Amino acid sequence: MAPSKQDRRAVAFARRHLPFLEWARAYDRDMAANDLIAALIVTIMLIPQSLAYALLAGLPPQVGLYASILPLIAYGLFGTSRTLAVGPVAVVSLMTAAAAGELARQGTPEYYAAALALALLSGLMLTAMGLFRLGFLANFLSHPVISGFITASGIIIALSQLRGVLGITGSGKTLPTLLSSMWTDIGSLNPTTLAIGASVTVFLFWSRKWLKPILIGRGFAPRPADIFAKAAPVVSVFVTIAATWALGLDKAGVKIVGEVPSGLPGLAMPAFDPGLWREVAIPALLISIVGFVESVSVAQTLAAKRRQRIDPDQELVGLGTANLASAISGGYPVTGGFARSVVNFDAGAQTPAAGMFTAIGIALATLVLTPLLFYLPKATLSATIIVAVLSLVDLGAIRRTWSYSRADGAAMLATIALTLVSGVETGIVAGVGLSIFLHLYRSSRPHFAIVGQVAGTEHFRNVKRHKVTTTPEILSIRVDESLYFANARYLEDTILNAIAADSAIRHVVLMCPAVNTIDSSALESLEAINQRLAASAVTFHLSEVKGPVMDRLRRSHFLHDLTGKVFLTQFDAMKDLTPDLTLKTLKAKRQTTSAVIANK
Amino acid sequence: MAPSKQDRRAVAFARRHLPFLEWARAYDRDMAANDLIAALIVTIMLIPQSLAYALLAGLPPQVGLYASILPLIAYGLFGTSRTLAVGPVAVVSLMTAAAAGELARQGTPEYYAAALALALLSGLMLTAMGLFRLGFLANFLSHPVISGFITASGIIIALSQLRGVLGITGSGKTLPTLLSSMWTDIGSLNPTTLAIGASVTVFLFWSRKWLKPILIGRGFAPRPADIFAKAAPVVSVFVTIAATWALGLDKAGVKIVGEVPSGLPGLAMPAFDPGLWREVAIPALLISIVGFVESVSVAQTLAAKRRQRIDPDQELVGLGTANLASAISGGYPVTGGFARSVVNFDAGAQTPAAGMFTAIGIALATLVLTPLLFYLPKATLSATIIVAVLSLVDLGAIRRTWSYSRADGAAMLATIALTLVSGVETGIVAGVGLSIFLHLYRSSRPHFAIVGQVAGTEHFRNVKRHKVTTTPEILSIRVDESLYFANARYLEDTILNAIAADSAIRHVVLMCPAVNTIDSSALESLEAINQRLAASAVTFHLSEVKGPVMDRLRRSHFLHDLTGKVFLTQFDAMKDLTPDLTLKTLKAKRQTTSAVIANK
Repeated sequence: MAPSKQDRRAVAFARRHLPFLEWARAYDRDMAANDLIAALIVTIMLIPQSLAYALLAGLPPQVGLYASILPLIAYGLFGTSRTLAVGPVAVVSLMTAAAAGELARQGTPEYYAAALALALLSGLMLTAMGLFRLGFLANFLSHPVISGFITASGIIIALSQLRGVLGITGSGKTLPTLLSSMWTDIGSLNPTTLAIGASVTVFLFWSRKWLKPILIGRGFAPRPADIFAKAAPVVSVFVTIAATWALGLDKAGVKIVGEVPSGLPGLAMPAFDPGLWREVAIPALLISIVGFVESVSVAQTLAAKRRQRIDPDQELVGLGTANLASAISGGYPVTGGFARSVVNFDAGAQTPAAGMFTAIGIALATLVLTPLLFYLPKATLSATIIVAVLSLVDLGAIRRTWSYSRADGAAMLATIALTLVSGVETGIVAGVGLSIFLHLYRSSRPHFAIVGQVAGTEHFRNVKRHKVTTTPEILSIRVDESLYFANARYLEDTILNAIAADSAIRHVVLMCPAVNTIDSSALESLEAINQRLAASAVTFHLSEVKGPVMDRLRRSHFLHDLTGKVFLTQFDAMKDLTPDLTLKTLKAKRQTTSAVIANK
Repeated sequence: MAPSKQDRRAVAFARRHLPFLEWARAYDRDMAANDLIAALIVTIMLIPQSLAYALLAGLPPQVGLYASILPLIAYGLFGTSRTLAVGPVAVVSLMTAAAAGELARQGTPEYYAAALALALLSGLMLTAMGLFRLGFLANFLSHPVISGFITASGIIIALSQLRGVLGITGSGKTLPTLLSSMWTDIGSLNPTTLAIGASVTVFLFWSRKWLKPILIGRGFAPRPADIFAKAAPVVSVFVTIAATWALGLDKAGVKIVGEVPSGLPGLAMPAFDPGLWREVAIPALLISIVGFVESVSVAQTLAAKRRQRIDPDQELVGLGTANLASAISGGYPVTGGFARSVVNFDAGAQTPAAGMFTAIGIALATLVLTPLLFYLPKATLSATIIVAVLSLVDLGAIRRTWSYSRADGAAMLATIALTLVSGVETGIVAGVGLSIFLHLYRSSRPHFAIVGQVAGTEHFRNVKRHKVTTTPEILSIRVDESLYFANARYLEDTILNAIAADSAIRHVVLMCPAVNTIDSSALESLEAINQRLAASAVTFHLSEVKGPVMDRLRRSHFLHDLTGKVFLTQFDAMKDLTPDLTLKTLKAKRQTTSAVIANK
């Protein structure tokens, strides 16, 4: 019996939304071996990171471990990237701390409940966006805004963790409050903590830069050398635990992680609390979008290297279910991380099974290793974070972006400044708003060019840039933008001013090769131009109107009312309007009109 | 002595910001006579309108008169339209009632203080926008949103005034609350009031439609006939005052205007109240922008008829000072009105002096006529408003807009629905947000066309729309949109999918005649495309890149990294890439690739 239409649809739906069905069929012993090795390496890397990011988010360390178990399984089932490693990341942890800190003090049950609610809502939003194919919304975050936001977040995170390295207290989530609280509390600096924190920081920076070449010099292959170098945080964790335990440094004022509950997290739905959900809805949306954008760009970069493809809408489902899994297992918002995904990829991970094996590794660590973490100095974790986030800070991008585009540079600088001064939420929202505004502003004052014919060709070019011939009775003007509400009035002003400046003109040809759309507002402006030109005995024509734009104009009254014609090409227009083809060179004259346009 | 540079600047500044200097120099007796006649007619029209709109705004009737004295003088000094008639208008009155009603009950001093604060802030905002040349901000209100907003406002105003005509009480500023309060209060219907209200309504509709032809039939010239017909509201005011006084209708439950304080308004700065100002800031901004857009479109329509021009930025200053004048003389927000400006124009007004004479006329009326208004039935004013605003309701525009563009139609419908259901502020804000979103959404999925050469020409056209020749090794693809953050990723996906679908391709030429800008995000996407194509041994070229876009690309590293070339024309690209010029007809093949693009 042939499968029914419904059956085929169900299969297509399952294929799309359960991507593991594809790779699981071909899964073999070789792949499993590769995935296991990658998982082992990522597990070792992820343990200190999970603890550190949980502290950055203001949560107990074990929450970071919980967020690195079930979410990895969920992403493995629903995500489309073969090598993305999901878990707690720096920027999302900072955003979680900012959002939960608005509602409760760190360490209270309300604070933890807010973090769980953020994971839950973020999971629901991402999954819904994926199912409704709303992944395009992430495109409204421009690269300069993202890059500026991550740089500013990195600076804030590094500064906040500098407190841990110095052993001073204090709080603050923006640059001014951070600096002033650090200034006030500098007296409480703990020399022993500083000694540990500074040594770990120096060791981590050193191993990041020098350990790999040294290992290669001693005969290691580049890839294992690289992976060993990236495991340096684990070494510093064990060394500082041992030192703190042996020397009793906790009695000298070194803050330690202390009792970490052993055992796997219990599974429970977060409490039903619509009031809380309303309060965290906006931050959850921002966390979702920022996390998605970060994750999907990592996933695409890695997929391209192996000629694989990812499906952004299904990625939303993958990250959404990962966050839902985090919410029901005592975790907090997670997303795909850059550093750990690269390690996973380099270590040879073949399929998302590597992520699932990593989850098992972290679960075992949660069961077995937590008693060992009692003497872990918090300064070690702070140093780990500082070294990790400083690689996110890209100040050179400001100069590069500014020199290419003032508007993009301004959006980037505004995002950085507002994130530093007013916090992460204001920063990202203002950055998005500003980049949309600047885009609309730019297209609201489009470029117009008076054009003439390039001698001996059928091409028409800007009279100011090329040697061209023109005719005094005909004004050929090209508009280099789609016509829509924001520039409709500017179009009217430009054409009417050009006509007012030159009484010889009998025909206006609006050349539209760059007009990709004409909306209702612009249509009304074209109608107004047509009427007003008619009142001055000037005929209005269009040329080189694109197919889809023409199709739409045919649905309106404009073409019936138009005093002139619509020409397929500008050359046709000139042939028709100057039948004897005596195209006199009157460039000088036309340049005067062009100057009128430029100066308005 | 020659004027110094500073002197010349001061003169230019004065010319720009004090437009009356220009017309006042040439002012003569003829112009004065014309202006005086126009002023007389507008004064007669404006008295009932001012009273009626004040009641619509929930304010005492004399406030409408106050708002029609000093603001007209201020606009006469600072406005650039020769014929715009400024004063209270329907939509702004409704918005004032909505904003003040949020803060206090009608009839309280706090309510009046809120209205004054709205005029003050609106005046400050408009003046500041004018001085900083921010008039372009009004362009972000698209025609469908404005049109939908005015239609919905007209429906709400007409319904709210229907209560006055029926003689029932009740409140509500949205369609559901209005209807439910009218349903509840229908029992309190006053038959005498209904008789007055219905007769006035019928008379006004009749005179609007039939009075002018009848007068012309009796030998009047068309223009005076038109003006007489428009004075019908004054007739109904006098007749219903006389009837109410003679028959003692107020004792039969007909609500009358009652005691209207006689005398000119005192001049006083509104109380300094930052708390109140913060609360009315957003409504004041919305009132400013809606009022400006309405006013400037009336002014431009009238200016074009006499080949005059207006300066939108100086118009902001004119309306701003008019509102400041209103605030210090006990008025409320004002703007240029459509109906009265047309009357002013048709009656032969030559200069803004007509507005100043109108101000004197209203001032005299305030001094002398107010005792006469005691017996004026409120139902007469309600009927005046209903007839005036129903001409603003343009339901046909919904169908026209929808059939031209689904996106514009959706923005219009959303604006109408939200204005009716959630009120004027939600309606206008949602309309603007939606039209910006739909514009970005459309340009985030641009039209791509695989192109081929039109035989015997240098032109390249869409393979799906034209009979063209192509070459299997070369994919020529035209993107019909500027490249920016919202469509950068879509560009990557489209080109990489097209390549994946056809292994014969060795060259990709991205044809850019419609690309008016490439922002930083799109530049990064082009770099990514270039790298990934290089990895597949495909060369990446650009053609027909516009001058300004090329200038910018030269400031980046992209042109150094580009594997291929940038060609002036697509024809040059094909000549260069197929040296033997054997352009085989392989349209069928290329159409397959085109289908891949269309189906993604």
